Amino acid sequence: MGEHKVHIDQLSRDELESQLSTLQEEYRRLGAMNLSLDLTRGKPGQEQVALSDALDGILGGDYRSADGVDVRNYGGLEGLTEARQLFGEVLGAPVAETLVGGNSSLTLMYHVIDFALSEGLRGPASAWGNSDTVKFICPCPGYDRHFSICEHLGIEMITVPMLDSGPDMDVVESLVAQDERIKGMWCVPRFSNPTGCVYSDSTVDRVARLGLDSTAHFIVMWDNAYCVHNLYDDAPALASIRERAVQHGTADNIFQFGSTSKVTFAGAGVAFLASSEANLAALKAHLAFQTIGPDKVNQLRHVRFLQDQATLAAHMARHAERIRPRFECVLATLAKGLDGTGMGSWLAPRGGYFISFDARPGLAREIVHLASDIGVKLTPAGATFPYGKDPQDSNIRLSPTFPALADVQACAEAFVICVKLASVRQRLKKADAR
Amino acid sequence: MGEHKVHIDQLSRDELESQLSTLQEEYRRLGAMNLSLDLTRGKPGQEQVALSDALDGILGGDYRSADGVDVRNYGGLEGLTEARQLFGEVLGAPVAETLVGGNSSLTLMYHVIDFALSEGLRGPASAWGNSDTVKFICPCPGYDRHFSICEHLGIEMITVPMLDSGPDMDVVESLVAQDERIKGMWCVPRFSNPTGCVYSDSTVDRVARLGLDSTAHFIVMWDNAYCVHNLYDDAPALASIRERAVQHGTADNIFQFGSTSKVTFAGAGVAFLASSEANLAALKAHLAFQTIGPDKVNQLRHVRFLQDQATLAAHMARHAERIRPRFECVLATLAKGLDGTGMGSWLAPRGGYFISFDARPGLAREIVHLASDIGVKLTPAGATFPYGKDPQDSNIRLSPTFPALADVQACAEAFVICVKLASVRQRLKKADAR
Repeated sequence: MGEHKVHIDQLSRDELESQLSTLQEEYRRLGAMNLSLDLTRGKPGQEQVALSDALDGILGGDYRSADGVDVRNYGGLEGLTEARQLFGEVLGAPVAETLVGGNSSLTLMYHVIDFALSEGLRGPASAWGNSDTVKFICPCPGYDRHFSICEHLGIEMITVPMLDSGPDMDVVESLVAQDERIKGMWCVPRFSNPTGCVYSDSTVDRVARLGLDSTAHFIVMWDNAYCVHNLYDDAPALASIRERAVQHGTADNIFQFGSTSKVTFAGAGVAFLASSEANLAALKAHLAFQTIGPDKVNQLRHVRFLQDQATLAAHMARHAERIRPRFECVLATLAKGLDGTGMGSWLAPRGGYFISFDARPGLAREIVHLASDIGVKLTPAGATFPYGKDPQDSNIRLSPTFPALADVQACAEAFVICVKLASVRQRLKKADAR
Repeated sequence: MGEHKVHIDQLSRDELESQLSTLQEEYRRLGAMNLSLDLTRGKPGQEQVALSDALDGILGGDYRSADGVDVRNYGGLEGLTEARQLFGEVLGAPVAETLVGGNSSLTLMYHVIDFALSEGLRGPASAWGNSDTVKFICPCPGYDRHFSICEHLGIEMITVPMLDSGPDMDVVESLVAQDERIKGMWCVPRFSNPTGCVYSDSTVDRVARLGLDSTAHFIVMWDNAYCVHNLYDDAPALASIRERAVQHGTADNIFQFGSTSKVTFAGAGVAFLASSEANLAALKAHLAFQTIGPDKVNQLRHVRFLQDQATLAAHMARHAERIRPRFECVLATLAKGLDGTGMGSWLAPRGGYFISFDARPGLAREIVHLASDIGVKLTPAGATFPYGKDPQDSNIRLSPTFPALADVQACAEAFVICVKLASVRQRLKKADAR
């Protein structure tokens, strides 16, 4: 596939026709292979979850936390102290500002927004729901489950472009300054889902200043889902949003989230949240109506297993060993097949779970459809935008962690063929239309 | 203490004065002991939770469910099939009508009411929140966390008396027939919290018929928290609400709940829900916005540990061995000190976690206060009624499972003294007022 290195816009009609016939042949060949491959979701692979198999049984009959709590019994809405310490450190927050919950950070995020909307972080008068319209800033491409929460709760979403340094903060600041109905913003600040970028220090500082002069009870949903998910030792660090917020006096505006879903067991990890003590107190009063408290046994398992930041980092290095070949396989296949062709652009993330691919505008849906028809499932086009609608119909999220390496290779090669086929067809159609 | 067996209303003024002075002496003696005892909540004791210590490590590295699911990874909102089978059987429901969730049935109950209120079990037009007033029937005395959910969500509570056969169904039926704003009813049908009664077959049948001729989308919150919590082999069985509801065509009205909180680990068990397939489908669409699914690893641990209904029953018999002496200690102490005195009445439950004590009207708060002053913490008076207000100020819930047996004995003796002291004082005050 290394042969077609001429930019698509430089190709003559004959060259396009010739490529089309080759690509159709390759596509038919792939179709005959009856592939059944899946690159849809950011799921850890079987080898990855097996890295934490020691979790079950790690307590060895000792069910007491370091501070003497019998973790088998009821009690403790904010989680075990030692778990709050360990995971607070992950988010750069002290114990008193950290809550450790159940197995899903999504649940914690939903609680925060639901609470701010219907009850108010500072009492009923502060409830966003008192206004007819509530808006949220959604840097795009982004994470579909963030957008689903907003859609489900009737929050209007405003998209803002992602740059290599994070969201375009000029746009964000101007929006927030103009419209007090904007109540918050989603962020995946390190190894952003899906672009893989890490917010620059300046971006972190500017995010921490949002809502500084506003009475809108603006909040930042800082979903640091991939905070310890380096693929390379030189992966860029992320500045502390908490430190900046404390400096700017905006600590009440920041809600940080994380989980061990992609550290230990995807479905059976622990999720955590860090915010100001005032926010935590308000949130706990809300949670008390609907839960008896989190699973402290599983929290203790996680503390015994992950121990401290050094042990956690060593564990994450073992994940990286398994993920890296998959990422490098996809990136090498994209480079080999598409570099210089103008048929798409992508970044090479230094961590996280995704590779974000931008096809020529108007082609994402078709590419996903072409792939699906030959047994290669990709994340639905549009999923990285609010309401599932990518205005450019261009972005496709690739998630190479789950399949076996050979399958990732097969997926990537099939993907390249689909991208080329769609691109050449589009060019020919445009040529015909002239 | 066996000496004062004359009914309090038969005592002369002198006899009352004499008893008062003896009781004050005994109360002072107790006060000097610096007791620090707690009968407040239905927590299993340490010996009880230790019965399930084998849970951690039971998987032995085998993380595959019977149907081949890797329980470590994401997926499956309704829980593992084999867990749905095991816990569906506990509630008398087939797999397709059973959902197994996280560690808290309270969370499942909150979800159901929140969903019915704000989104509607049958689409937006059916949302209870479309009406200004939503009411719920609360048999009393009952469970404070049920009432808290209603209070928190702005649902008006109507109390109905509890009989030995369950809620007074004449009252319930007449209320539901008269007022379509009544949308549901709380039930703890077996070993009711706190009275310990088991709903009679006729009561179960009549509950299953509620809402039959109504368009109110009436639901029954059937919190079967103590369904397998026999203390004696002859404990009365509970009729199947599902069978009756299927007969009457009201299956969509019934939501059954249970959990292993008082079977395995109070804070780290699994909770389950059974309802019609239509209800489950609607609820799952709602849950998908706020969770990645329940902890399937813990579900698999529970299935491997509890195995089947016979193994579960044998396990519950071991709980009963530990709880029974505590119940019998309280009941014997109450009988010895209060039988025939007219100072209170109580039932002797055949299962569950509570003994419900009815003092002479107007004395519950004072008795709890007297006990607290000598270091014996009881469930706050009023907690068994909506808004924490017992109109008779009479009911006190005793929870003898958690403390050591010697402490239960000390608590019960102190309680009897406080009951007598308050009763004699009240009688004297009334005599003075004449």
